Amino acid sequence: MKKIEGGVTAAKGFQATGVAAGIKKSKKDMAMIYSEAACRVAGTFTTNLVKAAPVKWDQEIVKSCNDAENAARFAGVHAVVVNSGVANACTGAEGYGYCRDTASKTAELFGIQENQVLVASTGVIGKQIPIDKICTGIEMMKPQLSDTKKGGTLAAEAIMTTDTVVKEVAVEVELGGKTVTIGGMCKGSGMIHPNMCTMLSFITTDANISQELLQKALSTSVPDTYNMVSIDGDTSTNDTCLVLANGLAGNPEITEENEDYQAFYEALNEINTVLAKKMAADGEGATAMFEVKVVGAASREQAVTISKSVVSSSLVKAMIYGHDANCGRILCAMGYSGASFDPDQVDVYFESAAGKIKIIENGVPTGYSEEEATRILSESAVTAIADIKMGEETATAWGCDLTHDYIKINADYRS
Amino acid sequence: MKKIEGGVTAAKGFQATGVAAGIKKSKKDMAMIYSEAACRVAGTFTTNLVKAAPVKWDQEIVKSCNDAENAARFAGVHAVVVNSGVANACTGAEGYGYCRDTASKTAELFGIQENQVLVASTGVIGKQIPIDKICTGIEMMKPQLSDTKKGGTLAAEAIMTTDTVVKEVAVEVELGGKTVTIGGMCKGSGMIHPNMCTMLSFITTDANISQELLQKALSTSVPDTYNMVSIDGDTSTNDTCLVLANGLAGNPEITEENEDYQAFYEALNEINTVLAKKMAADGEGATAMFEVKVVGAASREQAVTISKSVVSSSLVKAMIYGHDANCGRILCAMGYSGASFDPDQVDVYFESAAGKIKIIENGVPTGYSEEEATRILSESAVTAIADIKMGEETATAWGCDLTHDYIKINADYRS
Repeated sequence: MKKIEGGVTAAKGFQATGVAAGIKKSKKDMAMIYSEAACRVAGTFTTNLVKAAPVKWDQEIVKSCNDAENAARFAGVHAVVVNSGVANACTGAEGYGYCRDTASKTAELFGIQENQVLVASTGVIGKQIPIDKICTGIEMMKPQLSDTKKGGTLAAEAIMTTDTVVKEVAVEVELGGKTVTIGGMCKGSGMIHPNMCTMLSFITTDANISQELLQKALSTSVPDTYNMVSIDGDTSTNDTCLVLANGLAGNPEITEENEDYQAFYEALNEINTVLAKKMAADGEGATAMFEVKVVGAASREQAVTISKSVVSSSLVKAMIYGHDANCGRILCAMGYSGASFDPDQVDVYFESAAGKIKIIENGVPTGYSEEEATRILSESAVTAIADIKMGEETATAWGCDLTHDYIKINADYRS
Repeated sequence: MKKIEGGVTAAKGFQATGVAAGIKKSKKDMAMIYSEAACRVAGTFTTNLVKAAPVKWDQEIVKSCNDAENAARFAGVHAVVVNSGVANACTGAEGYGYCRDTASKTAELFGIQENQVLVASTGVIGKQIPIDKICTGIEMMKPQLSDTKKGGTLAAEAIMTTDTVVKEVAVEVELGGKTVTIGGMCKGSGMIHPNMCTMLSFITTDANISQELLQKALSTSVPDTYNMVSIDGDTSTNDTCLVLANGLAGNPEITEENEDYQAFYEALNEINTVLAKKMAADGEGATAMFEVKVVGAASREQAVTISKSVVSSSLVKAMIYGHDANCGRILCAMGYSGASFDPDQVDVYFESAAGKIKIIENGVPTGYSEEEATRILSESAVTAIADIKMGEETATAWGCDLTHDYIKINADYRS
């Protein structure tokens, strides 16, 4: 696996762009990904009972792709149209109608069917999208589509909301003697704190892989990557992760879980991991990426439960912001996670580029140097490691610190 | 039931005081409640797997009181000794030993047994309590004990950490022709955000009530009161609620669930409700008390789940701080609560002293006036009401807004 430049236009046959269609005041607010070659598509979506209209639209298409009988009659997906600024959530039948209008407008322009167009939105909940501006945006984007790195970056910029950095990544991997590329972009100052109520991730690949294994690879990777980004309770109505595969790399189709599948999975998982960490680091108002590793767990589930509990704790997150090794808060957050373990056996460490320090041994603070702890916690990426000494399983969760700016961003978001 | 002045010294036979024993730099940091008449005692404690040493100490005593066989041999509790500043959590066997030393010192001074002394702590986790200062504090407090309102207030002041107001309440109720008094004090900028990792609540009453019914009344009331204060994930290691009953009111002993029990329960529940709301309103950094009522639920459990999800949402709390009716966030937080309901049937209202406004009807925002909504959200107590139209059950949860000051308080708490 080789990391390369680029994002959603890195793989063969994918074009993209982003424009300012007037949904936001003056920023780019619409993106398009297009592949002339039809794509297989895999998707995972928010578990929130309240689902945005575009989530419902995409779920129907992905579901029908994953249904063998329907899939045989389905030519595949060509385009994804995304807008930022308005989430199209809590918008009733009218909002769902606008998803159809968006797909229909795109289909008409490209001479495809409306069910070959996926849509996604991110922004304020409870407001209808300005469908006229959306349709104008689609017309603007068609002639600007580009397979260059620039095209991908324009798209990645256009899906940003409170994000402060563009999030793109791409890798190459050899499959059956052919070079296969996977690239992706995402937005989200997190499932961490989904201000705009959305994590959106779009991944494109020229891999030739069966529908079944494409969905399986994505569904296997998501729990270890995006779902390990701290959810501070606010699971979005719009969370969407889509993988489009157009097969243009020309590798022999992956139809079973062989070495090629494994290599593809690892590359996809790497893309997802990088994007997930980029989201964590760009959490709203964050000054530091915060990683929590639980080691020595009896089961993966136990490690996941404990690591997520610690990475989501407001008190722990505020402590990271303050560079203050108030170590009891880590143990406290482990204790209310719901997982069972012996507090009197736990060791806890802090680690960063500045070093590593043991702060709790067998449930009691060590006589660590506060100065050294503060130095370690002052880096832009900080890891807490908890060893619960019950077995061999581990889990890693990602989040960020809780800062003044988080409040600032969220107290008056719409103004 | 009649609301009266005072707190833990309102009921007959209870004395209290608070002093500065040097645990904190210059503030009061130790409190004592004492009753010469032996008391029955009921208690509820944190569910955190990591329990502070004083929680373990008190749990053993309360458990033994609730065990009929032991209780027959037990003369009852006389004193509660509380310190603020250090939580005595994550302190191992050494920390538990200091609980015994605290009880032992008190027992020696008052000529009672060490298992007749309850202890509680609140403050920094992972630090040993300065037992010498604690013992000196106990010596200082004995001669200062007072049954006046002032004595109760001194105690209520001494248990404060980041609390900004003293939290006391008392009521009178007629039971069997006698006036029975219940008074209480608590501290806690919440289970909401237990910075100091603690809600402590102490209630005293001169009611004559059986051990079994005293514990039953407390255990029935706690889920509807303290446990409806928003827990933002950070359940403390030290949470403790104790009720001491010395029987001095002289009412016929309440031994069955008759009218007297009902009247006692209602008075106790009122005390707990008032104290719970006082904690919510004094949440760390809070500028407003935030109440969430779910009505029209099919079951109490469903109403509780949804109301707690909304009151705990960082995004909703930040929105209240910003006086910004970003109504989608309410529906979003309902949707990820885990409870099942039809989002397309939900109505949502905001209500405060400034009026009431319907912001969502059947899952979609109404054309409400932003100005009016902002006016309603600008009060110091704000209620969100969600009608899910499935039945007759309701629940009310209490919290507060999420503000700049919360971050300030928690980022560098120990310094």
